[in-house]
Amino acid sequence: MKTDDRKMWADLGIDLQRHDTFLNLLPPVYQETYLSQNNRPEHMEFFDFVVGDIHGIRVRELREHAQNGSKVVAAYCVFVPEEIVLAAGAILVGLCAGAQFSVPLAEDILPRNTCALIKSSFGFKLGRICPYVQTSHLIVGETTCDGKKKMFEILGKYQPVYVMEVPNKKTQLSRALWLGEVKSFKQVIEKLTGDEITADRLAQATKLVNDRRRALQRLYSARKAAPVPISGKDALLVTQVAFYDDVARCIQQVNALCDEVESRIAGGDGVFPANARRILITGSPMAIPNWKLHHILETAGAAVVCEETCTGTRYFDNLVPECEGTVEEQLENIADRYLKINCACFTPNDERLSDIVRLAKEYNVDGVVHYNLQFCHTYANEAVKVEETLAEAGIPLLRIESDYSNEDEGQIRTRVEAFLEMIRR
Amino acid sequence: MKTDDRKMWADLGIDLQRHDTFLNLLPPVYQETYLSQNNRPEHMEFFDFVVGDIHGIRVRELREHAQNGSKVVAAYCVFVPEEIVLAAGAILVGLCAGAQFSVPLAEDILPRNTCALIKSSFGFKLGRICPYVQTSHLIVGETTCDGKKKMFEILGKYQPVYVMEVPNKKTQLSRALWLGEVKSFKQVIEKLTGDEITADRLAQATKLVNDRRRALQRLYSARKAAPVPISGKDALLVTQVAFYDDVARCIQQVNALCDEVESRIAGGDGVFPANARRILITGSPMAIPNWKLHHILETAGAAVVCEETCTGTRYFDNLVPECEGTVEEQLENIADRYLKINCACFTPNDERLSDIVRLAKEYNVDGVVHYNLQFCHTYANEAVKVEETLAEAGIPLLRIESDYSNEDEGQIRTRVEAFLEMIRR
Repeated sequence: MKTDDRKMWADLGIDLQRHDTFLNLLPPVYQETYLSQNNRPEHMEFFDFVVGDIHGIRVRELREHAQNGSKVVAAYCVFVPEEIVLAAGAILVGLCAGAQFSVPLAEDILPRNTCALIKSSFGFKLGRICPYVQTSHLIVGETTCDGKKKMFEILGKYQPVYVMEVPNKKTQLSRALWLGEVKSFKQVIEKLTGDEITADRLAQATKLVNDRRRALQRLYSARKAAPVPISGKDALLVTQVAFYDDVARCIQQVNALCDEVESRIAGGDGVFPANARRILITGSPMAIPNWKLHHILETAGAAVVCEETCTGTRYFDNLVPECEGTVEEQLENIADRYLKINCACFTPNDERLSDIVRLAKEYNVDGVVHYNLQFCHTYANEAVKVEETLAEAGIPLLRIESDYSNEDEGQIRTRVEAFLEMIRR
Repeated sequence: MKTDDRKMWADLGIDLQRHDTFLNLLPPVYQETYLSQNNRPEHMEFFDFVVGDIHGIRVRELREHAQNGSKVVAAYCVFVPEEIVLAAGAILVGLCAGAQFSVPLAEDILPRNTCALIKSSFGFKLGRICPYVQTSHLIVGETTCDGKKKMFEILGKYQPVYVMEVPNKKTQLSRALWLGEVKSFKQVIEKLTGDEITADRLAQATKLVNDRRRALQRLYSARKAAPVPISGKDALLVTQVAFYDDVARCIQQVNALCDEVESRIAGGDGVFPANARRILITGSPMAIPNWKLHHILETAGAAVVCEETCTGTRYFDNLVPECEGTVEEQLENIADRYLKINCACFTPNDERLSDIVRLAKEYNVDGVVHYNLQFCHTYANEAVKVEETLAEAGIPLLRIESDYSNEDEGQIRTRVEAFLEMIRR
């Protein structure tokens, strides 16, 4: 089996030596971060298995899909409408972007003053370490931040890239632009796949993606319970895996996990003591294996109960209305749903401020941690308004800026412990 | 006179003590950078006078304009259509954004990893140091970079701010968005001023702004001569002053300077030896008093002959077609002209790459210096493509990243000297 994997990776153009080094780094981190937790839901075994074979089975599935003549589309952002990709018989995968390992590779080309997520993703391609990007036929970028927007131009030298324009304001003009972009994207995907996107197929795909959203919403809803039945780390992992796992399987697995988690709630069974401080994290996305902040918080006595991030609520909040309408009507519904993602790329973005306060109440949190990747201008600046808003709402806030290195772990731990002390119930 | 100024500044809410400290810093810098130059065009006296009274006469004019019931509109970017502001009887001024002095003030609120231009401009408002921003009724921002886009939200707490959405791509959809933004901006300005923008007034304003563009184009054209009749520092200053001086006076003064400069060319009179290395600077804008790079280059034996920046060719290249059309038709012309500004906010932005190569040839340069402000993601990333393009064209390139401090002057000087040595004729 291992031998088969190595052959597949070699066929995909993977730099095997570098890839070995990378894969060997993961198990001890996963052991320390995940497997050391107590009283985890049994169903997390599935997700442990997925991470344990992170570049194996799923890559093989995508490759078989490609060998059957279908297409694999890759993306880095929750604005890329998966419904359209699925409706053309293609598969959308979220790409690797969370590891320090590939950052130095990217710094040979990209400015060092770029956020770790962008450098990591670019380095994975440049260093030929990620079999997902190697398997994909098209990378779909977007314009949600300057760093990614300009990185995609450079990435285009190494792999076909198509960029969707996400607008900056939330006006009728911006909505018209975005709807046009969604329609253009449909054409791009139809051309890539050679498949026509019919109303029926689009409606089916919409239902499927909505079902995954509903499953993740169900999981998050369970985290409102006290004691909390699943750790923040585990919930984060589930969302992270959703970005690249098969959609139908993901729905099934998340719902099976929810069954267990809900029975835990009924039994009053939690993973943390009932008096653990409940924390909402908000800010920049956390791609696999960026578990640093969750790990620090949850080993310092807190329970992360919600993430208002693109690897959290922004990924699955708001469903696309399911209708029997024409393709045109459905695309309007899709465009509108995605525009409700309150990304810091928008100006103003007051809806995110309201979301944070609302979620803080719904999840009954004791404090909020605003997390932004270093050099992420949009979230770093928006933190100023988040700070004002939470001060007005009387909700304690800790602001953390970090990257993917381990160097600041001690400092963050000290600040987190002081914060948790301060918000002691 | 001085007493009158102090009273005016106090009336404008200026922090007089801080302002004194700031104004006292300028004369020695100006002496060293500008007045120490040899054989300057005599007509630079006017611009010396303007800088010598930088917060005096012009502020008084704007204030009188405001006291007569008209409006002052402030901006930080060449995308804000001045024609529309002037057609409503208002005045547009470019705001102070080039001084290190106000940077630490901004860092109390904005992320430190923000470019110096943004921090400087925000600090000027926060510290109440800039009489231009204090005189203005509305600041018009735009979405050309993440840092400014999000800073404007915070700035809105201190002064009325309106933000124009500049698109990210150069497609028909983006053009429709921008045209809509230009039309909305007309309504905003009409509401602010209470004046209707008629076709006649808009045509007049367009002619006026074009005349300034033509005057600056004439000045830049003179810099193609060898020996070069005016220093890069002086030419940069002329452009910088154009951002806030009265438009008609600016046209007159720049043309008078051009008369002198052109007679110099006829007489073979230059400010640098004929064998001075000719340099094109490209990249981030340079606001007053950010003269560092020009000063280093020109005291190291080079002649800066052109700036492909927003304080250079991007400011005045391309005229708005002058026509007798309706307001609607004229707004389309205006929108299209501004969309030709090849700002690094666009993706892709290949037209800028062509511009650089074209200008390098037109100005017969020996080398290009790519300058970007630290943390300016758009220009820093685009430098990768500039580097590739210039390598293909066989044009030497030096990449400089800097901020507004003096700390890196020695290091930049060393690199500049090595570069000039390398490209010796």
